[in-house]
Amino acid sequence: MDLSEDRLIQTISRLLSGREPGVVVGIGDDAAVVEPGSGSLVLTTDLLAEGVHFERGAISARDLGAKAITVNVSDVAAMAASPRYALVALAAPADVEAAWVVELFGGMREASAEYGLALVGGDTNRADLLVLSVAVVGEVAPGRALVRSGARPGDRIVVTGELGGAAGGLVLSRAEPDVTSVALSAPWGRALVEALERPVARVGEAQVLARSGATAMMDLSDGFAKDLSRLCEASGVGARVHVEAVPVSGALADGAAALGVDARTLALSGGEDYELLATLPAGSVGDAAARLSEDFGVGLSDVGEITEEPGLVSVDAEGRASELEPLGWDHFGPG
Amino acid sequence: MDLSEDRLIQTISRLLSGREPGVVVGIGDDAAVVEPGSGSLVLTTDLLAEGVHFERGAISARDLGAKAITVNVSDVAAMAASPRYALVALAAPADVEAAWVVELFGGMREASAEYGLALVGGDTNRADLLVLSVAVVGEVAPGRALVRSGARPGDRIVVTGELGGAAGGLVLSRAEPDVTSVALSAPWGRALVEALERPVARVGEAQVLARSGATAMMDLSDGFAKDLSRLCEASGVGARVHVEAVPVSGALADGAAALGVDARTLALSGGEDYELLATLPAGSVGDAAARLSEDFGVGLSDVGEITEEPGLVSVDAEGRASELEPLGWDHFGPG
Repeated sequence: MDLSEDRLIQTISRLLSGREPGVVVGIGDDAAVVEPGSGSLVLTTDLLAEGVHFERGAISARDLGAKAITVNVSDVAAMAASPRYALVALAAPADVEAAWVVELFGGMREASAEYGLALVGGDTNRADLLVLSVAVVGEVAPGRALVRSGARPGDRIVVTGELGGAAGGLVLSRAEPDVTSVALSAPWGRALVEALERPVARVGEAQVLARSGATAMMDLSDGFAKDLSRLCEASGVGARVHVEAVPVSGALADGAAALGVDARTLALSGGEDYELLATLPAGSVGDAAARLSEDFGVGLSDVGEITEEPGLVSVDAEGRASELEPLGWDHFGPG
Repeated sequence: MDLSEDRLIQTISRLLSGREPGVVVGIGDDAAVVEPGSGSLVLTTDLLAEGVHFERGAISARDLGAKAITVNVSDVAAMAASPRYALVALAAPADVEAAWVVELFGGMREASAEYGLALVGGDTNRADLLVLSVAVVGEVAPGRALVRSGARPGDRIVVTGELGGAAGGLVLSRAEPDVTSVALSAPWGRALVEALERPVARVGEAQVLARSGATAMMDLSDGFAKDLSRLCEASGVGARVHVEAVPVSGALADGAAALGVDARTLALSGGEDYELLATLPAGSVGDAAARLSEDFGVGLSDVGEITEEPGLVSVDAEGRASELEPLGWDHFGPG
């Protein structure tokens, strides 16, 4: 690191200096001071560590910064809330250059602007590993936060967008060089990398689902099957999933053969898509899908129903039922 | 790590399960939901990384957890605000045992209870390095946050408590085994270790200083001289410091010879004391000191005055002036 902490904070402050509405004291004091609205606060934090969530050489500083913001915004969105303020704690090894850190904050600024978020404070440290920890504060009208525990038997299970793209991007990033070079010359390869490195948080979409009467919602960060099992456990229910209805990333479908993976398996168990998983009364799905398509150009797939019996059941195109294993990403388990 | 992430989150949730007032949704959903009061929000984050801020073998999990909370609370206190909610992001290597993580959260719970803070959410990850990143949300009446930039020429410079104890603890922790064993059998040695491992945030004291008319305030995390230079720079002023008046930790004074350090130098430049540095109109110092002594048993030292000319000047017991170098801890500079 070729800048002192004070100089770095000055550089970052200048980069972020647009005084945002509601921000009374921004970066540079002991803490930030903001004037929130009258809603409830939604609080979340997500940490990205080198070697686990990313490799420094494999993602640009700008994409990494944007992703660190986006994954936190996605958690706020999944509560049907609006992101407002972000704090960033950075630990960076001595060999990280100031220009790289400035790019990182540039990416955070881009994503913050995209989601209407003010980056109000942070902490910069040296460490032997690059770690980026972001906390986001959002707002939601009192009593309107949408939790995981409200799913009821009979509700439809819906998913926004397409799944498996980020997992495909991860497979691609670990593939042999000859596979990678073929992939990156094809639209599907570039789309998979983008799905992994520049995910999108579904903020407006979540609010449409909430207004459509969603009974439970969460974002898909650790894989559809694993996250659905968590939603079901929190709600004390089970689920029947029509696996043919689970929306598979088009790019993943195009590249699956070249990558040597099964697209549907990755769509069911791959993490980091940051799409929304929600449960809706059966009568609301059509309207919600129409609104999402119209307002955001985003699809909504009806992938099954909530059941009284606990556990996940997978139903195939021929109607054969089997257990759906809650496979996915466990941040502490065998990676 | 011998627990899956879901199991660990369940264990932590049980440990923290006392539903705190104002907490609508706690640990376990995508984000926490809280009902704040009508004040402004104060937001801060501080990260502790293994090898930089602590060594895993040298501090207990419980003390580390408490310290991670306390250093964040100290930043909130320095704005004259009250801590309310905390978020924790943890990255832990695979060899960290679940029992250690539970102790860590136990320490966070202790410190949170001490400061009236609700630990509402978090993120747990595996990584090659132990990193603990905490964000704290506080509240303060609108317009009452106390920043660094309000010091005016003629104001007195005051410091709570004593300085240099944590730096003495750090020196002790790095001393030869024979020095350490002598030190730890003496009250001063144990006091220095405690100053480093169990710092105290001055929440109530900060509010007394604010009510006494403090014009600027910050907490002393990176060393008196360095932090004072930051306060002066933010306020566009300078300072004359009567070095004899800077309160030196009694334990450090007792142990300085055995540790081979100069106690006053450490008090001026050592970090992590988490005492308050404030500027007060001259007429307010006596009353503020009486209140702090009466309500908290904490001393307040008048260590100099704010000047119009920028820069720090040190004045010794004989009245000789010299430049006071803003030495201290730079999180990115040569450690």
